[in-house]
Order: sequence, then C-alpha cells, then structure tokens
Amino acid sequence: MSDGHAKAIKSNLILDGKMLKVSVDDLILPNNQACQFEIVRHPGAAVIVPVDNQNRVTLVRQYRYVCDTWMLEVPAGKLDPGEEPEACAKRELLEETGLVAGKLEPLGIIYPTPGFCDEKLWLYLARELTQASQNLDADEILEVKTYTLENAVELALNGDIQDAKTVCALLRAAHCLKY
Amino acid sequence: MSDGHAKAIKSNLILDGKMLKVSVDDLILPNNQACQFEIVRHPGAAVIVPVDNQNRVTLVRQYRYVCDTWMLEVPAGKLDPGEEPEACAKRELLEETGLVAGKLEPLGIIYPTPGFCDEKLWLYLARELTQASQNLDADEILEVKTYTLENAVELALNGDIQDAKTVCALLRAAHCLKY
Repeated sequence: MSDGHAKAIKSNLILDGKMLKVSVDDLILPNNQACQFEIVRHPGAAVIVPVDNQNRVTLVRQYRYVCDTWMLEVPAGKLDPGEEPEACAKRELLEETGLVAGKLEPLGIIYPTPGFCDEKLWLYLARELTQASQNLDADEILEVKTYTLENAVELALNGDIQDAKTVCALLRAAHCLKY
Repeated sequence: MSDGHAKAIKSNLILDGKMLKVSVDDLILPNNQACQFEIVRHPGAAVIVPVDNQNRVTLVRQYRYVCDTWMLEVPAGKLDPGEEPEACAKRELLEETGLVAGKLEPLGIIYPTPGFCDEKLWLYLARELTQASQNLDADEILEVKTYTLENAVELALNGDIQDAKTVCALLRAAHCLKY
C-alpha cells in the first residue's frame, strides 16, 4: 500500500477559471477506500529570492484580497502556458521589482497545499542583480522593500513573515549562502 | 493606497463543498482597479512538530491524491467547526501518530496560498510526548516515521521535504529549540 496510487473513477469539473480549475473527483484510494475529493488545479509558479552582493534581499509588500491583508513576500508569479520555471522566475522578478538576475540557483520545489491543490512552486536564488524598470499587472498592488538577509530570516523564523513560500524560500536561500 | 482594502461588489458561489467553498468575486481593488478573482475558502488547520526529549521528530508519510504522490509531512489537520487551533493540534497529533503532547508551544501562523485561498495554519511545537493509540480517518493513508531533528532540518533545507507547511514548521521548531 505504501507506494500505491489512487484510481480516479469520475471527475466532475465545477469551475474552469482564468487561474484555477476546480473539480469534485470520485476515486478509490490505495487502501481501496472509495471517497470523494474536492480538487483545485493550478498552473504552478516560480518564486525568487533576490540577494545583492551586500546580502540585502528585495521583498514585496502585497495586497492579498482573499485574506484581506497586506503581506510581505518574495517576488513570485504563475507560469504562463508552456513557460519554463526559470524563464518565469526571470520575468516575474523583472515585472515585480525591476531587477534583472545575472544568475539563478535552484532551491528545490515546494507544494503549498498538497491536501487539495496540485500547485507546485519552483524556488530560485537570484544573484548578480542589476536594476531595470518594474512593470506590474493591473491587478497587482505591491511595494518593493529591501531588508538585510539576516533581518528577513529573523522575520521568517519569528512569525512576522506569514506567507509560507516566503518562509521556505528565504530559509533555503540563507542555507545555500551559508548564512 | 498601501494600507487600503478591496471592496467586494458581488460574490458568485460555485462550490459549497465538504472542505472547500469556491467563488468568483467581482471587486474593486485598493488601486480602484475593477477585477474578478477566483477564490477558495478553507476552514484552516493546525500543524504540529512533535519533538521528544532526545530531539527525535515524528513525521508522517502520506498519500496526496491531487499530486498523485507520497509526501513526508509533519502531522496536521483541519479545524472542526468552532474548534480552537490548540485543541485541533492535540486531536490531530493523537489521531495521526498516537502521541499525546504534554506541552504545546506556538510557532506562529502561515498562509500557504494567499494568492487565491484564505487557508490559515497555526503551527505548534509539541513536547513532553507520551505514546497512546493512532486513530486515522478512513480517507487518511499514512505511515509514521521518526527522524532526528537534525536530519529532518537537513531534508527541509536541501529540498527532499517538499511540503511547504512542513518546511516552515520544522525550521521554526528548530529555531525555537535553538538547534
């Protein structure tokens, strides 16, 4: 059982949206239990920790409608159809912060909510940064903020940073930089 | 603008499910931009890092249908209606691992996916552990595994652990234990 997979019996598509596809699936689990799962499908996204040569990290303070709050996050954004995660990381970093990354180092992947959504995030450390122009989408509301990496790591560990991808990406980046 | 909030114009409920509520909302953002958002509402959950007095941590290897994969995670589970996060943490720890926590220390909260879902996770370090009996739900498929905290932290940092809440909770727990 411990390496088994589920068998999908029927998938009922409820929403085929701009960003999300939502379905209610009837399935047989690897323990032969029949059940119904509510499923969200998401295109995946790239997440970037931009750290300059003085170990300062650029974050974005962003309005999040569904939580009705402003959150401090690393730059990130959804993959366009067919887009490679690394290309997405460079594009989103430039759009949100105006930074161009000379070098991207992969920091592995994370699944934010494997209980109900297949969203997969590719994490990158961005180095060799140069400044160009920010270019936000109309529905993106964010402010660019700069922190020392030491301070950002402290905010991730003490709970002041509450966005999960930001906590994961900052702590993996600091580890990668042997910080 | 930087502390503004959105105005909801209309919310169209698409799914009122067992676990999730999905809607498509028409709204005015704090920058006065009209837009439509696909929204998932979730009851929230408690997340537990159980660490014994020899600094061994109990994890669960769990089948995740939506990603069709087995994942190494900390114990966690959804809040029942009206349930306090701390009560949920104790209940889920016992159900999934058979462990009873003599002491819970809060490790702050995280939002796994603030871009589209209001799910909020309350993280706890569980100490003073004693062993009782596991009691799984029929649709939960998991194996209990024990690691040294040092090894678990390494798996979170090097990318072998891919569940975001597990990465966040393990690294905050290790920081709290000055590990």
